[in-house]
Amino acid sequence: MGIVLGDNRYGKAETHVVRVVRDSARHEIHDLVVSSSLRGDFAAAHLDGDQGNTLPTDTQKNTVLALAKEVGVESPEAFAVALARHFVDDVEPVTSARVTVDEYRWARAEVDGAPHDHTFVQSEREVRTVAVTAEPVQTHVVSGLRDLVLLKSTGSQFTGFRTDRYTTLVPATDRVLATSLTAWWRWISLPADVVAARDEVRARLVSVFGDLHSLALQQTLWEMGRTALEARDDIAEIRFSAPNRHHFLADLAPYGLENPGEVFWAADRPYGLIEVEVRRDEIETCPSAWQDLPGFA
Amino acid sequence: MGIVLGDNRYGKAETHVVRVVRDSARHEIHDLVVSSSLRGDFAAAHLDGDQGNTLPTDTQKNTVLALAKEVGVESPEAFAVALARHFVDDVEPVTSARVTVDEYRWARAEVDGAPHDHTFVQSEREVRTVAVTAEPVQTHVVSGLRDLVLLKSTGSQFTGFRTDRYTTLVPATDRVLATSLTAWWRWISLPADVVAARDEVRARLVSVFGDLHSLALQQTLWEMGRTALEARDDIAEIRFSAPNRHHFLADLAPYGLENPGEVFWAADRPYGLIEVEVRRDEIETCPSAWQDLPGFA
Amino acid sequence: MGIVLGDNRYGKAETHVVRVVRDSARHEIHDLVVSSSLRGDFAAAHLDGDQGNTLPTDTQKNTVLALAKEVGVESPEAFAVALARHFVDDVEPVTSARVTVDEYRWARAEVDGAPHDHTFVQSEREVRTVAVTAEPVQTHVVSGLRDLVLLKSTGSQFTGFRTDRYTTLVPATDRVLATSLTAWWRWISLPADVVAARDEVRARLVSVFGDLHSLALQQTLWEMGRTALEARDDIAEIRFSAPNRHHFLADLAPYGLENPGEVFWAADRPYGLIEVEVRRDEIETCPSAWQDLPGFA
Amino acid sequence: MGIVLGDNRYGKAETHVVRVVRDSARHEIHDLVVSSSLRGDFAAAHLDGDQGNTLPTDTQKNTVLALAKEVGVESPEAFAVALARHFVDDVEPVTSARVTVDEYRWARAEVDGAPHDHTFVQSEREVRTVAVTAEPVQTHVVSGLRDLVLLKSTGSQFTGFRTDRYTTLVPATDRVLATSLTAWWRWISLPADVVAARDEVRARLVSVFGDLHSLALQQTLWEMGRTALEARDDIAEIRFSAPNRHHFLADLAPYGLENPGEVFWAADRPYGLIEVEVRRDEIETCPSAWQDLPGFA
Repeated sequence: MGIVLGDNRYGKAETHVVRVVRDSARHEIHDLVVSSSLRGDFAAAHLDGDQGNTLPTDTQKNTVLALAKEVGVESPEAFAVALARHFVDDVEPVTSARVTVDEYRWARAEVDGAPHDHTFVQSEREVRTVAVTAEPVQTHVVSGLRDLVLLKSTGSQFTGFRTDRYTTLVPATDRVLATSLTAWWRWISLPADVVAARDEVRARLVSVFGDLHSLALQQTLWEMGRTALEARDDIAEIRFSAPNRHHFLADLAPYGLENPGEVFWAADRPYGLIEVEVRRDEIETCPSAWQDLPGFA
Repeated sequence: MGIVLGDNRYGKAETHVVRVVRDSARHEIHDLVVSSSLRGDFAAAHLDGDQGNTLPTDTQKNTVLALAKEVGVESPEAFAVALARHFVDDVEPVTSARVTVDEYRWARAEVDGAPHDHTFVQSEREVRTVAVTAEPVQTHVVSGLRDLVLLKSTGSQFTGFRTDRYTTLVPATDRVLATSLTAWWRWISLPADVVAARDEVRARLVSVFGDLHSLALQQTLWEMGRTALEARDDIAEIRFSAPNRHHFLADLAPYGLENPGEVFWAADRPYGLIEVEVRRDEIETCPSAWQDLPGFA
Repeated sequence: MGIVLGDNRYGKAETHVVRVVRDSARHEIHDLVVSSSLRGDFAAAHLDGDQGNTLPTDTQKNTVLALAKEVGVESPEAFAVALARHFVDDVEPVTSARVTVDEYRWARAEVDGAPHDHTFVQSEREVRTVAVTAEPVQTHVVSGLRDLVLLKSTGSQFTGFRTDRYTTLVPATDRVLATSLTAWWRWISLPADVVAARDEVRARLVSVFGDLHSLALQQTLWEMGRTALEARDDIAEIRFSAPNRHHFLADLAPYGLENPGEVFWAADRPYGLIEVEVRRDEIETCPSAWQDLPGFA
Repeated sequence: MGIVLGDNRYGKAETHVVRVVRDSARHEIHDLVVSSSLRGDFAAAHLDGDQGNTLPTDTQKNTVLALAKEVGVESPEAFAVALARHFVDDVEPVTSARVTVDEYRWARAEVDGAPHDHTFVQSEREVRTVAVTAEPVQTHVVSGLRDLVLLKSTGSQFTGFRTDRYTTLVPATDRVLATSLTAWWRWISLPADVVAARDEVRARLVSVFGDLHSLALQQTLWEMGRTALEARDDIAEIRFSAPNRHHFLADLAPYGLENPGEVFWAADRPYGLIEVEVRRDEIETCPSAWQDLPGFA
């Protein structure tokens, strides 16, 4: 008939696991939402309804919980690698596995002025993310973050742009620039202290956002990516998805008021959306590591 | 006919205003979502379609933006009082006005290791809230917070509860207790430094949540409220709405693993919901200050 | 000390139950999200941490599932009454119970051109709602709906409104009027066929929205309420919460195009918000039936 | 330095346009959320901050509104093609354009028992989607839908699956199968009556979901895709992303109640997620048409 099964995968999405480390009275907690998705020899499951090769998604959820105990989750990257490799190495029909993790961060609560042993407050808006792709031989690790909401109240302009029949925008020599950043970067090799390495990447991204006089969000993202790659030899490439969250200067003239860059109203929709990749030219890209990463489009 | 107009109000919801203070190179920003709602002599607007008394909601939005310039928003409480009083004092048909504010907080971004002059990062999950009710003579100010997500990994039990035919719950002598707190408290008189006063209330709430060995979320909330009222003579009453975000101990026995309070899965729905008011018995309650406060039910 | 426990209640929110009626090959399904909340003799639970009177919220969830079997849910109103009365009548410390239900509606799927016996499609954006308040003697039933999104592309104006210093709005003699309606109405006595009665109320509301040349959303809501009360003697009062979802005429003049009411852009925030009650003057209001109803504020 | 700019694109996301057709007293409305994203000669915008080639995203929004007037939106596919081709054909630096459309559907409201001329109700939960990719020579059109929520209350089993150490799932010979379907299909050539063609595809998908005794969601999706391709020669390939929305049989035995497939509780997270492509083997795939389609991962 000429109609064939194409690419396919299946898994369990959004298992929400909270891991308490209670080796001493000073507990630690890690709060992860974990998704797994498997590719492999699953044609019969589709074509014939034969589930003999299908490891239930319920089992994938159980495996997340069991490995949270057996392996631990202190490094979400290491946990995701262990989980993804387990599926490829131990479940025969599986030829590749994608594991994604969203990490929600908690800080120790201040109780009577001191950080408490076992009380925590969800401290950050931003989410730390991991996407691991395990293949028979290779394991690709991509780390990232999303919902990192940044704003600069000056040091941004947008001028000299192309115009056409439909252009009404007035150039801005001093504007508010704000975004809610999604970033993903692929490690050439996973650093020993990946938590510290991530913090360094994040610090670089924020510093460039702040330091650079921005001529456009595109330029800011390029410089952010370039700086991250210069700082860390172990990163192959980095990708950004950055909405331009428009802040419009309120027109107060009708009420006899001046507004020298003080009062803005923030719009929800529509918004600009800039997507940029920065990479090393000597390193081959790795499509399977990037396929279907959440946070784009 | 016996069919009559009952209670009614109207206004503009969710004007999102960002105010930059740029008196020096070290900017400050305040990020507020403001809603206003007016009661008064609006029967004709309903019964006859006569809008002569109706100040457009578009004007209410304009007024938010104008007062953000004229009054400033450094204290959201003071801004909300000014806005609400303006509507009652200056717009003749208005007999009472409710203004609510959600404040999203930003911190200075670390740029090259130092807090930056004009770059900010949205730093908190929780939202600071204000609800002001202006009447011809009185002005009631209720401050609050929502999405304050707290968790303690031990120091909580739930035992000795009532059972009936439908009860299957097993008593827990050591469990995870987690909530996403909504709190509102009414000021008897607005403190001079309301920002510091709020921080003190929040610190007390968090400290009791951490310190108290919890016999139930009800008891924790009562003690949180009692402590806040003891600490601040200027608070008349405080109300909480606290979901009990259940964290279930994962059963790892089928895989031959022990789980001594280490691995939990977090459920979204259903959730417990506890609502409690703590007040001073010598002070009369003030229904209009509390009517229709968001975050309950 | 003068600090006392005020109003309090507790319960289980958002138990999502799907009930299949499979008495014949032609199944029916009912899809409800149920919340219960109890008031009563729970002071000791707060003040002393003594849970002897506390029926666990887990038990409340179990009861929802059990009664879905024992009582059935074909009429969400009757189900909510049975559940709320059970808590007040059978659980000794409980003096009042609130049960709310959100009903998501499914239609039979068209399969090969005919409605199928056991395949369904979620067919409506709007949600049917119920809020029952059981007290020792009385039971109040309030039915409602939310997310009923209505738009009229003409037949609406907004002129002759009050202006002040901050007014810039231009009167509109022909505009788009759109809302996402929340409505709640209290039954004096529950009609025998409450499903049909609800459909009649909904039909009246929609008809008035369409028929009436609107001078303001306030007037439209009043007429909708008045008509519903005229049509049904068994309704005591009705309340609306109606956002005014603004549709702004796009200015196409810069591109040499006319726009005679054809192209609009729809804004998310801010939005107008109109809240109106219509009631019978000879009937006493019933505050406990209306307390903390979701969908307002 | 070896660090280079990789893939990049930019555009305006989520312009919400409502188009009224008022050629007669019987109006029609079309409600679209439109996003555009451009690739092309934008290296200088990133590397040098030179915006000379950058058509502002504000202009892209204006163009959406202008073309809604000039071209009309009765066929979202035709509108998206016109918009995407405009960017590639008329804006010199642009080498490819992606336009996506979400269409929210409205039905005529019943007013006094008859469909009304100019009053509408948002009638469907599901959203119709379009993704057009314009390149210098070719234009690819992918149509789709999302949030099509389907459930069958019997006629589904899951047995004979693979097990391992972590498997606890019990085989089910009669279960509830529910999903919220996302589907995308690529047209070989756009049918003359694309609205009717879409309705046919949708009808086939729903019919197979209902008719087929399901051995797994994978098998159901394969058969849905196969049937759609058999029915329409003009479809090259179809992709599905289908969460398995678990409905768990409530255990009522502790209360002495039987539950023969009548009472289920519906879980939010985690959920299964099945992604499948069905295609014609004689037709080459078209990566650029599918790149970054929303609704996957």
